Amino acid sequence: MGEEILLRADRDGVAELTLNLPDRLNALSDAMLAALQAQIDALSDDSATRAVILRGAGKMFCAGHDLKEMTAGRQAEDGGKAYFADLFARCARVMIGLQRLPQPVVAEVHGIATAAGCQLVASCDMAIAAEGTRFGVNGVNIGLFCSTPMVALSRNIPRKQAFEMLTTGQFIGTERAEALGLINRAVPPSELAEATRALAGMVAQKLSAAVKIGKAAFYEQMQMPVDQAYAYAGDVMVQNMLFRDTEEGIAAFLEKRPPDWPH
Amino acid sequence: MGEEILLRADRDGVAELTLNLPDRLNALSDAMLAALQAQIDALSDDSATRAVILRGAGKMFCAGHDLKEMTAGRQAEDGGKAYFADLFARCARVMIGLQRLPQPVVAEVHGIATAAGCQLVASCDMAIAAEGTRFGVNGVNIGLFCSTPMVALSRNIPRKQAFEMLTTGQFIGTERAEALGLINRAVPPSELAEATRALAGMVAQKLSAAVKIGKAAFYEQMQMPVDQAYAYAGDVMVQNMLFRDTEEGIAAFLEKRPPDWPH
Amino acid sequence: MGEEILLRADRDGVAELTLNLPDRLNALSDAMLAALQAQIDALSDDSATRAVILRGAGKMFCAGHDLKEMTAGRQAEDGGKAYFADLFARCARVMIGLQRLPQPVVAEVHGIATAAGCQLVASCDMAIAAEGTRFGVNGVNIGLFCSTPMVALSRNIPRKQAFEMLTTGQFIGTERAEALGLINRAVPPSELAEATRALAGMVAQKLSAAVKIGKAAFYEQMQMPVDQAYAYAGDVMVQNMLFRDTEEGIAAFLEKRPPDWPH
Repeated sequence: MGEEILLRADRDGVAELTLNLPDRLNALSDAMLAALQAQIDALSDDSATRAVILRGAGKMFCAGHDLKEMTAGRQAEDGGKAYFADLFARCARVMIGLQRLPQPVVAEVHGIATAAGCQLVASCDMAIAAEGTRFGVNGVNIGLFCSTPMVALSRNIPRKQAFEMLTTGQFIGTERAEALGLINRAVPPSELAEATRALAGMVAQKLSAAVKIGKAAFYEQMQMPVDQAYAYAGDVMVQNMLFRDTEEGIAAFLEKRPPDWPH
Repeated sequence: MGEEILLRADRDGVAELTLNLPDRLNALSDAMLAALQAQIDALSDDSATRAVILRGAGKMFCAGHDLKEMTAGRQAEDGGKAYFADLFARCARVMIGLQRLPQPVVAEVHGIATAAGCQLVASCDMAIAAEGTRFGVNGVNIGLFCSTPMVALSRNIPRKQAFEMLTTGQFIGTERAEALGLINRAVPPSELAEATRALAGMVAQKLSAAVKIGKAAFYEQMQMPVDQAYAYAGDVMVQNMLFRDTEEGIAAFLEKRPPDWPH
Repeated sequence: MGEEILLRADRDGVAELTLNLPDRLNALSDAMLAALQAQIDALSDDSATRAVILRGAGKMFCAGHDLKEMTAGRQAEDGGKAYFADLFARCARVMIGLQRLPQPVVAEVHGIATAAGCQLVASCDMAIAAEGTRFGVNGVNIGLFCSTPMVALSRNIPRKQAFEMLTTGQFIGTERAEALGLINRAVPPSELAEATRALAGMVAQKLSAAVKIGKAAFYEQMQMPVDQAYAYAGDVMVQNMLFRDTEEGIAAFLEKRPPDWPH
């Protein structure tokens, strides 16, 4: 299993995915994107899994796209145009796929998260980082502006701060990443795995049907004008109220006892 | 008057609304929503009122929907579906109604603001809280994801932080609420009423026609692409410039004297 | 040159624009807006210029519109209606024009930035301020709500904080401006020019074709739903990958040597 590029371990309803190309800085190569997409597809209707953790093996979380592979793509007759278009479409599908998963996804970030690696952090629902982790969208330094990473980044942090990261290519540390909203919090490196599991575990203990309907609504309503958002979210609340387990959850709360939920 | 569920006191052009169901944690029951809607309707064309304060009587600001009443609604033939749909529509109408009021609305928050109570804070134009107040959208703990509260919450604070609150059900304190943008600031409990009145009073002293036109534009333009937002806001500025009292305000400023405004 | 109302100095690929009406607090008069628009038009296809700095001469950055000139506009038969409409359209064109420029624009802010002057800060891509600078949208104090400035302001900072500034007319300092996202950072006044030049200089050293395509995409994608944003940004990435200089930049990176870029 140690030779697979994307490891998966399941425990207590939490799927732990580990990018496992440490020698290539966990680059989002064609194979890695395919492996991530396969896991996303599998998780989409995996009702036994209630939360997901995404981390990287080795020295860092993820250094973004695989530049060697991209460069090799230039050998095609069209100079790589079709390959690049397909690559960015596959990458976007993975990034959006994380948000479309029914399970909340927690990024467990250490070392460096840069370019599409930073995008991966921004695309997860939540993120905890080891103190000392550095975040950047530094493609501009090699002449490739991080245009797709910025779709996720600019939906996480304020615009002037995003713009500075994108045009200077400079890294920020965990304190600033937390202040800007890119991560939920930073913890000492020795506590990272534990903190991430605690967060994922807490979410995994909730009623998964409620979390699923709520997560989907979270991203949908945010793109709507407020009246439409309320009409939509109201429908979601009605559906949620009619779940048998929600009826039990509310009854248990009113009767001051733990809910009898199937786990 | 102490027996009404929503108290109103007016002084110096500021309407102070107090949720007055302390034994039920100021729950947004059917009656409370109706009382709030009635006040919103009355305030909509009340030109003597120039700002609004919203607070809760007793130990806390507001604990959200009335779960007993909602549970009773399940007795209907459809299991409560029509009642719930109507309830969330009425609740959304109140929340949006606060933003559509011509007067700025300041939430004066103490104790706890949870679920639809937290939504109420997020829906007010501004909020001041007593230090020690706790904010949460913890419906997920009983199997009811706070999907309607998140419409307001996710328009106040960054997304990863909103997602964490919604899926963990954990509370945040005033320091974090201020850092995230959910409240304007926290003050010692003993200074809460005074601080809220000072803020509402300051706004109440402005030219109310300008505040009215500006408040409406604030929320409208935010939902538009930037070119459209500027075209719209430009029209608003032209209207504002043509107010007789604005002409006087600008003239007074240029002549270094106080404006002669009708108060 | 000291008598022109908008100075321009070029060095090392950076255009430094200085609002030069210190006796009128660098007001955005008709003449100043025209001068800014002329520079924006000139910079739009000025490939030798790779970054822009915008500052104000004298005691402050900019105090907003020219109220005397606006008051004079009331003499027209329509009370100034057509003039005001045209004025706000011209002003919006300048503000949007800064974002549409191919070059990143850094505001170098000192003293005071108020009303349309604060809008100017919010409209620049990045901003550095001298410690002690004060920011406000205080038109409400004279009966003219800052409706057009709020288009830019509300796209920089959280909504409750923007609402408070707009309805109270109160100023905020640099520490708060930085925490809210209105500026990238504050530095001691004696270091302001140097810090701004360092930031502009750093951006100017990047591949300008990549910065240009990235900056345009930054603002465009932010107004799109996420799927559309990714489709758009993916196209931008493909275009960027096919730049000859980007091919060189990536090759140089892989070969651990500096890129051979035309400067």
